[in-house]
Amino acid sequence: MDFITSYTDLIEKEIQSLDFPSSPETLYSPQRYILESNGKRIRPILVLMASGLCGGDAKTALPAAVAVELIHNFTLLHDDIMDQAESRRGKATVHIRWDVATAILAGDGMFTQALLQLQRLPESVNHKKLTRIFLEGINHVCEGQALDMEFEDRLDVTADEYLSMIAGKTAALIKVSLQIGGIVAEVPEEVTEQLGELGLSLGIAFQIQDDLLDVVADPEKFGKKRGGDISEGKKTFLMVKTLECCTAGEREWLTGKLSSKPLQQDDILKVIDLFRKYEITDSAHSLMNHYYEKASKMLAGFEDSDYKRDLIQLITYLQKREF
Amino acid sequence: MDFITSYTDLIEKEIQSLDFPSSPETLYSPQRYILESNGKRIRPILVLMASGLCGGDAKTALPAAVAVELIHNFTLLHDDIMDQAESRRGKATVHIRWDVATAILAGDGMFTQALLQLQRLPESVNHKKLTRIFLEGINHVCEGQALDMEFEDRLDVTADEYLSMIAGKTAALIKVSLQIGGIVAEVPEEVTEQLGELGLSLGIAFQIQDDLLDVVADPEKFGKKRGGDISEGKKTFLMVKTLECCTAGEREWLTGKLSSKPLQQDDILKVIDLFRKYEITDSAHSLMNHYYEKASKMLAGFEDSDYKRDLIQLITYLQKREF
Repeated sequence: MDFITSYTDLIEKEIQSLDFPSSPETLYSPQRYILESNGKRIRPILVLMASGLCGGDAKTALPAAVAVELIHNFTLLHDDIMDQAESRRGKATVHIRWDVATAILAGDGMFTQALLQLQRLPESVNHKKLTRIFLEGINHVCEGQALDMEFEDRLDVTADEYLSMIAGKTAALIKVSLQIGGIVAEVPEEVTEQLGELGLSLGIAFQIQDDLLDVVADPEKFGKKRGGDISEGKKTFLMVKTLECCTAGEREWLTGKLSSKPLQQDDILKVIDLFRKYEITDSAHSLMNHYYEKASKMLAGFEDSDYKRDLIQLITYLQKREF
Repeated sequence: MDFITSYTDLIEKEIQSLDFPSSPETLYSPQRYILESNGKRIRPILVLMASGLCGGDAKTALPAAVAVELIHNFTLLHDDIMDQAESRRGKATVHIRWDVATAILAGDGMFTQALLQLQRLPESVNHKKLTRIFLEGINHVCEGQALDMEFEDRLDVTADEYLSMIAGKTAALIKVSLQIGGIVAEVPEEVTEQLGELGLSLGIAFQIQDDLLDVVADPEKFGKKRGGDISEGKKTFLMVKTLECCTAGEREWLTGKLSSKPLQQDDILKVIDLFRKYEITDSAHSLMNHYYEKASKMLAGFEDSDYKRDLIQLITYLQKREF
């Protein structure tokens, strides 16, 4: 992890220097609170690396990196209300620690602050284009979240629909991270496109892996209970594929269980057995690797540099992660 | 109202032409739904008038006008959840018609769409400055909403604090409307400032009037039950001033009632009697007129034009409104 320390140091320092006013406390305290619960900061790291990869100065891209991290936290604030999640990164979620109204408002404020960060970039950066890419990405995240909500009540979600959903919900912001890193480095349009494809593949790989880790990871390392997604009846890649290829009898049993979630421990284990029976975990693993490799191939087209080396290392690190 | 028809026609047509995708329905249906419940469209009208006032073409400013209306509707979507409002403009609110998660997400999507509208303005417009003014305004709205929430549990809110709160919650977006109209017309910085002051005064006048109409308006015309704000224990100008100047005994009674809201009909009438006893409705009326006149005075400094005439008429119309 040493290779990312120089990036995370820059990012943490920049986030700590965000000067939220002390009042109104209702607006700013929850924003400070969620930013203090250290996430992995993957998205801002990607902004800095992409900017460097494209010949820019990573430090110059810091406001864009912070902007993406703020947007990520804005989505967490609102998603946690929608998912009725009670804790995140070992701390009570904002709507539990305060209340739903405060969490909605803190999210709105953080969305605003994210976009204001982009004002701090140098005048030479194409602000209009950068903002457009940023906003289109956020809208794509909203679309993914909407699809995810719609899938909750559906039992006929296809693997393609699932991929569309995660392309928005998870991958869109990773795509944006790479693209705005490039835009800060003032790359031509076709490079922005290439960065977008790289980010999309990386984000899709990351989400399939998350789905997989729910079942195969060591719960201690992963920080979540095994089968949490199954218990909540989430339409993960594993679930969608299993519903697609199991027998009519298994399907009847499974849809019955999904319509009365949360699933209990013994049912979760039975579902995991189904995943194994149809080698769904294997095919998830293959699909994840396919997307990680696609991302690596996109990256190979860029000129060699320290940043490229770091990005290759980051992709390898993510591909091997167990949490 | 004839003088505003030409503006509202343009705005309605522009809003109707917004091409929301059909899917995901969960994201776009509620956005269409709230935009179809015709509001007064005061803010977008102000954008167009301000642009014309500053020598610009009102039509050119249409994307900015739509952006402000979308932001206004974004705040309504989220405020209605926070206030647990069940209906708006005679229709069920989105979180009632659908659910809280859908209303949060629709609001987030609408915020995004609002900012994307600004992309459609001509290249000659200073996009970075326009976006900054827009976002600072939205953050000010968030601050106002936070203060309003904090005031709910406080009995010692001063008139100055109340004015700070409405300067954000209500006036900030009216200020933004005038300012971005000016920026589209490419006015120099000092004119943006003047437009901002005009908007701030107009917005403060508008909110004090809203507080007043809750008590003095014909409920049929106003479309809300008399004393609705009192029933909910809202810290309106009237309530704040009354708490400031009533006797210790009255204060004890009033704070007791406020701590067990909603207030019942006979108590609402007693509160209105207190407002009358201390001539609070009169002083609210004076303060409202003071701000309307301040706005008119700011407007007097601009060159004569049809747009200026329309804006004068709009201010007069608002000042006399009974709903």
